[in-house]
Amino acid sequence: MPLKKPHNGLQNGDGSHEKDSRHFGNGSQQQNMDLNDHEGEQNLPSMLEVSNDSPVVNGIGTSLANGSLNLHSTVKRKLDGEKDYVFDKRLRYSVRQNESNCRFRDIVVRKEDGFTHILLSSQTSDNNALTPEIMKEVRRALCNASADDSKLLLLSAVGSVFCSGLDYSYLIGRLSNDRRKESTRIAEAIRDFVKAFIQFKKPIVVAINGPALGLGASILPLCDIVWASEKAWFQTPYATIRLTPAGCSSYTFPQILGVALANEMLFCGRKLTAQEACSRGLVSQVFWPTTFSQEVMLRVKEMASCSAVVLEESKCLVRSFLKSGLEDVNEKECQMLKQLWSSSKGLDSLFSYLQDKIYEV
Amino acid sequence: MPLKKPHNGLQNGDGSHEKDSRHFGNGSQQQNMDLNDHEGEQNLPSMLEVSNDSPVVNGIGTSLANGSLNLHSTVKRKLDGEKDYVFDKRLRYSVRQNESNCRFRDIVVRKEDGFTHILLSSQTSDNNALTPEIMKEVRRALCNASADDSKLLLLSAVGSVFCSGLDYSYLIGRLSNDRRKESTRIAEAIRDFVKAFIQFKKPIVVAINGPALGLGASILPLCDIVWASEKAWFQTPYATIRLTPAGCSSYTFPQILGVALANEMLFCGRKLTAQEACSRGLVSQVFWPTTFSQEVMLRVKEMASCSAVVLEESKCLVRSFLKSGLEDVNEKECQMLKQLWSSSKGLDSLFSYLQDKIYEV
Amino acid sequence: MPLKKPHNGLQNGDGSHEKDSRHFGNGSQQQNMDLNDHEGEQNLPSMLEVSNDSPVVNGIGTSLANGSLNLHSTVKRKLDGEKDYVFDKRLRYSVRQNESNCRFRDIVVRKEDGFTHILLSSQTSDNNALTPEIMKEVRRALCNASADDSKLLLLSAVGSVFCSGLDYSYLIGRLSNDRRKESTRIAEAIRDFVKAFIQFKKPIVVAINGPALGLGASILPLCDIVWASEKAWFQTPYATIRLTPAGCSSYTFPQILGVALANEMLFCGRKLTAQEACSRGLVSQVFWPTTFSQEVMLRVKEMASCSAVVLEESKCLVRSFLKSGLEDVNEKECQMLKQLWSSSKGLDSLFSYLQDKIYEV
Repeated sequence: MPLKKPHNGLQNGDGSHEKDSRHFGNGSQQQNMDLNDHEGEQNLPSMLEVSNDSPVVNGIGTSLANGSLNLHSTVKRKLDGEKDYVFDKRLRYSVRQNESNCRFRDIVVRKEDGFTHILLSSQTSDNNALTPEIMKEVRRALCNASADDSKLLLLSAVGSVFCSGLDYSYLIGRLSNDRRKESTRIAEAIRDFVKAFIQFKKPIVVAINGPALGLGASILPLCDIVWASEKAWFQTPYATIRLTPAGCSSYTFPQILGVALANEMLFCGRKLTAQEACSRGLVSQVFWPTTFSQEVMLRVKEMASCSAVVLEESKCLVRSFLKSGLEDVNEKECQMLKQLWSSSKGLDSLFSYLQDKIYEV
Repeated sequence: MPLKKPHNGLQNGDGSHEKDSRHFGNGSQQQNMDLNDHEGEQNLPSMLEVSNDSPVVNGIGTSLANGSLNLHSTVKRKLDGEKDYVFDKRLRYSVRQNESNCRFRDIVVRKEDGFTHILLSSQTSDNNALTPEIMKEVRRALCNASADDSKLLLLSAVGSVFCSGLDYSYLIGRLSNDRRKESTRIAEAIRDFVKAFIQFKKPIVVAINGPALGLGASILPLCDIVWASEKAWFQTPYATIRLTPAGCSSYTFPQILGVALANEMLFCGRKLTAQEACSRGLVSQVFWPTTFSQEVMLRVKEMASCSAVVLEESKCLVRSFLKSGLEDVNEKECQMLKQLWSSSKGLDSLFSYLQDKIYEV
Repeated sequence: MPLKKPHNGLQNGDGSHEKDSRHFGNGSQQQNMDLNDHEGEQNLPSMLEVSNDSPVVNGIGTSLANGSLNLHSTVKRKLDGEKDYVFDKRLRYSVRQNESNCRFRDIVVRKEDGFTHILLSSQTSDNNALTPEIMKEVRRALCNASADDSKLLLLSAVGSVFCSGLDYSYLIGRLSNDRRKESTRIAEAIRDFVKAFIQFKKPIVVAINGPALGLGASILPLCDIVWASEKAWFQTPYATIRLTPAGCSSYTFPQILGVALANEMLFCGRKLTAQEACSRGLVSQVFWPTTFSQEVMLRVKEMASCSAVVLEESKCLVRSFLKSGLEDVNEKECQMLKQLWSSSKGLDSLFSYLQDKIYEV
């Protein structure tokens, strides 16, 4: 759900990044430089292309099998020694070291020791907004991760926004062209994307670095552990932008937040700060932005040291009672969206809203 | 659940009203005067009688059709221009302008632009306590609102108490006369009242201005958005007054608050402040008393600008999984109350409690 | 879940007990002396043996029927008059006054006016850790309490730890000897223990004086009201110690805490303070350690003055929708534990963890 105006808000967030760092400041200066550095590199899509298609049996082994690895492995160790893990640094590293038979364009997939790391890093949409193509890439990565030897999945994002939800400029463009065909195609893409999360059997840890909007917030209860940076916030203004809930939020949000708050989010676009989301159960724990990546990695690595059987069976016990219910909800929600988009009235309402208003975040 | 002593407590609340206003004080002096003004008028029941029986197709049109409207419409616009909407002021206005084929005695129903506003304003009970007759009026108003062109329903109350639950003096009086017949009649009135909330298809927004007790608190999870004034508080001391839970609270309270707190409320009469109720999920958001009405109206009007289809379908998605379950719970709860009231032992226990003790709030 | 190192941590907790008392300090000096006093007495198991096997019809009557009672009843009244009820003091009293046909070794059962009080006071394990034998004693006490005239059950613990969960030294010892037989026996003991809580029809109030770990924390949502001392904390590090969830926590924790926090507890061993547990719904209310016992007793006695029918029927309404689901979860969880323990791989993982690591609390 990329909102037109947010760009400013989000960029403001970026602008205040250095100030924040100083505020919390524990030697994160270098990390910031890295982030800036990296953002400059985002214009070079080829550098972000990471291979990970063929299900690999040994996470470490894979890396070692890559040609360019040995060259950089000492560098990597040196970096690891110098300071804690930084998503973006590792990302750049992975970019250089990986060559594969299957490339992702809008996500980055990293095989780590015991877990798979998927990073939203959209080249074809702003603010990690989701298009059917990007959702398909995530599904493919989930499918790979479910079959390989990783014990769990870490989902995070590159840049300052976690995910701004469905890409509306894409949506309007397509629906304007062929309402009937595109409404079905997009609704089915959402359904399959959400289904992939519902059916994933290994624990999913999500690290929310910044705003999570619409579908980007709705899928969080389908994941198992949600860690958020202080900078994260959450909003699902479905009714406000003339849409019905998606991502099973019509079921999971009332379940977790209580009907009163869930409905305020779904109907009135109520925005939750990271702390609010944490105190109400949407988020497991909130960390300071400057040490967020390190805190997450520390915990994910500890989780990855657990027995794979125990992790998967524990998730199975926790989820088994929800799974079939969630699949029904997902079907119903996407059916409803399809109806809205294929009806001229529903579409007019959506279009007039998106054209007339600039949604202020 | 009107408790004998609370009257004092509640009136104390009223007494401190002016102090509160000064405390928060942002130009609410005039609003307070209005409230006091209005309280004086409560002794004139005829002024509060508002008509709204026939399902009306156009909310604004209705008002325009009334004879006395044009006289006051400029006054109304002037008031709206001068300052934000105030429940009580509008109430008085509506009283004057409405004439209809069906009058409500204990509630006020206002057709607004895009939504229906029901105000509890009981003339036949203290503190907006509920009798079978008052519950029937609310049901009738809900039935009308479900059929007209309004997109949502706003429920609030006149005075300083939202609703003190079932009227016990009424209950004792009736059950003393004819235990068997009256226990069935009252239990069925509760059942139908609660059922009307479960089955209502448009979003229900509740604005809680003051204490919500017993059934008045229990029905809140059956509504969709719950906004509360800082002055509101919540209590369901069912076991304390020798009753079993009603209003589906035996199901919704554990669901929302967790079993531990829900049971403390149902078994021990634990009282929740507005802030507590908000942090635990019973309430969506808490507002300061002096600006409460304005904040609510602002949001309700924004909601009412949404597409009717989106609002109704969103509610349908959120509620569909609960509806049949809630109807079962409602049946069981009312069955249990009927049993308690029709058994001499259960009745003795209730009577001896109500006669012996004065419940201190 | 008695963790190897915690003993220190917990004893540190004990060490800081006096300091805490001074901190909160409102005349609790005598209570502390009592606690210390009592801890000295724990070495005299015979003094803690309390009879409560035969279902008794009249709670007070029972006590009066005991031979040694009259001797001490005046002492008791004097103590009650001097100051509020203290668990440990009453315990010592009960120890002296009770003689019965059925003795408990690791728990203490007291018949109070209107309610049964079960205290975990393990002589055969450290920190009130649970063995199949201790769990059987609790089941027997629950069975008695369900048949007698008490209206509700109070569960608490002697000492500074509420319950440290399953006894691991016991577990390792037994599973090392006969993996196949013992895994079944222990898993079934857990299943029956948990089932006894699920099926108990009268309200269960739990008073958590200190740490509640593993199974000791997992059973809390099966109880109805949970009051905790500021000193209490909660942890279920199942995955960390290579186990899957037990005590229905795979269902109740996500239900109450939300999936995000529940999974952080189950997968990462996230520790909750009493305040956190309260704000997230696991605990009804938190009290200061020095007045904890009095606050609990005051409330339990008030609850016990309610009608027995109302209490039981209210619990029935609240629990009826959960009961069959919980029994399924319990079966599945115990089945999974049995599989883990009877497989050489699962056992190796558990053993290597427990041998290699010392879990730092």
